[in-house]
Amino acid sequence: MVELKSELAALQTPALILDERKMMRNVLRLEDRIRPHGVSLRPHLKTVKSIEVARRILPEGFGPVTVSTLNEAEQFAAAGVRDIIYSVGIAAQKLDRVVDVRARGCDLSVILDNLDQARAVAEASARNGMAIPALIELDCDDHRSGVAPDDPLLLELGTVLHNSAAELRGVLTHAGESYEVYGREAHAGCAEVERRAAVVAAERLRAAGLPCPVVSVGSTPTAHALTCFDGLTEVRAGVFTFFDLFQAGIGVCEMDDIAISVLTTVIGHQKNKGWAITDAGWMAMSRDRGSAGQRVDQGYGLVCDMEGRVLPDLIVLKANQEHGIIAPRPGSGATLPEFPVGTMLRILPNHACATAAQYDRYHVIPEDPDVPLTEWSRFGGW
Amino acid sequence: MVELKSELAALQTPALILDERKMMRNVLRLEDRIRPHGVSLRPHLKTVKSIEVARRILPEGFGPVTVSTLNEAEQFAAAGVRDIIYSVGIAAQKLDRVVDVRARGCDLSVILDNLDQARAVAEASARNGMAIPALIELDCDDHRSGVAPDDPLLLELGTVLHNSAAELRGVLTHAGESYEVYGREAHAGCAEVERRAAVVAAERLRAAGLPCPVVSVGSTPTAHALTCFDGLTEVRAGVFTFFDLFQAGIGVCEMDDIAISVLTTVIGHQKNKGWAITDAGWMAMSRDRGSAGQRVDQGYGLVCDMEGRVLPDLIVLKANQEHGIIAPRPGSGATLPEFPVGTMLRILPNHACATAAQYDRYHVIPEDPDVPLTEWSRFGGW
Repeated sequence: MVELKSELAALQTPALILDERKMMRNVLRLEDRIRPHGVSLRPHLKTVKSIEVARRILPEGFGPVTVSTLNEAEQFAAAGVRDIIYSVGIAAQKLDRVVDVRARGCDLSVILDNLDQARAVAEASARNGMAIPALIELDCDDHRSGVAPDDPLLLELGTVLHNSAAELRGVLTHAGESYEVYGREAHAGCAEVERRAAVVAAERLRAAGLPCPVVSVGSTPTAHALTCFDGLTEVRAGVFTFFDLFQAGIGVCEMDDIAISVLTTVIGHQKNKGWAITDAGWMAMSRDRGSAGQRVDQGYGLVCDMEGRVLPDLIVLKANQEHGIIAPRPGSGATLPEFPVGTMLRILPNHACATAAQYDRYHVIPEDPDVPLTEWSRFGGW
Repeated sequence: MVELKSELAALQTPALILDERKMMRNVLRLEDRIRPHGVSLRPHLKTVKSIEVARRILPEGFGPVTVSTLNEAEQFAAAGVRDIIYSVGIAAQKLDRVVDVRARGCDLSVILDNLDQARAVAEASARNGMAIPALIELDCDDHRSGVAPDDPLLLELGTVLHNSAAELRGVLTHAGESYEVYGREAHAGCAEVERRAAVVAAERLRAAGLPCPVVSVGSTPTAHALTCFDGLTEVRAGVFTFFDLFQAGIGVCEMDDIAISVLTTVIGHQKNKGWAITDAGWMAMSRDRGSAGQRVDQGYGLVCDMEGRVLPDLIVLKANQEHGIIAPRPGSGATLPEFPVGTMLRILPNHACATAAQYDRYHVIPEDPDVPLTEWSRFGGW
């Protein structure tokens, strides 16, 4: 049994810690929900951005996955992933990179919601003698991008793609509004809105004689709440691998499920204010204050001891670039424990995607307690 | 004359653009304010984190500079910088790295505000047979860390350091509260508070027979407003190199001074909402919403055309991880211009330090219009 505390104490702070056991438990929890319905799970790797994490969480190692940047597509394809959806509306200037990834044997598909994009994908397909697969992005809940499922544009896009050198691969939607509501019942409602939008659009395309092999939905809250899978072929989710305070705040996970944390060192105090000052500011935590609008504002993060046990009502109250200020949550009545200078703590983040993006590696606490800490690399950029 | 627009159009978006001419104008503006007073300017390189930028903005190339991480200290020391203050309170676990940088010929000093740190610096100095220089951090405005100038602890710290193998290098303070007030007059008030705290503390140390060669103050707002330099030896500032919407919002710069921007591509629209969707979300802009509490809320950034001309009242209203939503500022009465899919725009950031940190390189528009775009690398991490 390796002594975790002394291993962590040897790290330079701030450092990003990943608890592999929690991560694998999170992944299995969602797989167990989705797979029995004959629907595939297509994890969104924008959260993890790491080949080593991808190898752990993809059962066969080659997909299917979702990505948020072409850099992710290129890196995961180079590592052997064979089925990728790039789920940000394609820009014409990026199609050469899509063609390159596909030419290396990875089935990379793109998404789009307007005729300019459809024509650009059709032209690039013709020019390269390669059918680039495209999914039509649907707007199921008035959240961001996408075509309404009943919009005549849906059939126009399907027709342009199908009658061209490109490939009409299907439809895709994301219930972004599921982040704004609390609890299983509300998320199940969002999930049904998401499913219905995708299925209605798929049926319209098919009724018009167009193919729609893929019917893709998903967000972490809806993937965990979905009960009816009729008409779907796959479910996407991203932050479910790590979870975070935001997801805990909308009732999708427990604090104990959060698999990443930031290790920090106490460097001073302002005793009259009840503050401990640490070396994890917003550069280490990210500027994400997602919990600010939730029932419980977690500041820039929730404080845990080195073993990862939550210290109730102790938060990162303020953050400068390289300074965090730890204090009791205002109104909680809690007091700051004795934290001598040099004390190391772990901070749970508001948003796993944003916090992890501040680091180039994970320090991994392996599932097997007899295995020492290990490092997994991660990347950023586009 | 190289055609800027066609050069930018060849970049993959999102991309970080640095206008070298504006940067050099910003640097000269502050140098011209500070140098005539016989006080040195010690730029804070936490904003730029780039060897190439450091080479441009440090007249002699070897310092003095300020850094916010030991990784910056290591990288800039390796590039030849010879005088560095690491301006985050030192943690004992980091002293080995300080010793290593100093052993390579760079005069790296640390800051501290408590006896545990002073003893750790003293012990590391004795253990390594090397006098590690330490400045005592002062709290001039109740902002964050530091000892009050009239606190008995000041002399205790000075005595512990001076009567040890370490070196008492001086005092340092930062008027963090200057970011909370608007306009030259208010900043001049903060600058005088900052100066007085440093000078009072230096005089107390000297009256007690302790050395205090360095009296260091600074923040971008106070450095630009300081009128009395009596008793100071140096002024620090960081974001002045690039500036940003936050600094413009407190009246320290004009929009036209902001030297960095994010190049983005329009990928779609929601016409009924007056939205253009781009590929620069919060991963490209950072989550920093510093202007949210200012007179004019700039959203996630202010929109410019490709030449960098501000499009009035057009902001990044919302941002998801890889999507930006551009819309008129609420209440402005402005309407969204026609931005065909594929239009490229440049976005001014809320906070240069946070936005630049999302990238591993700058695409530099050189001062000389006959020179093509060039790339300068930047780094992150600790």
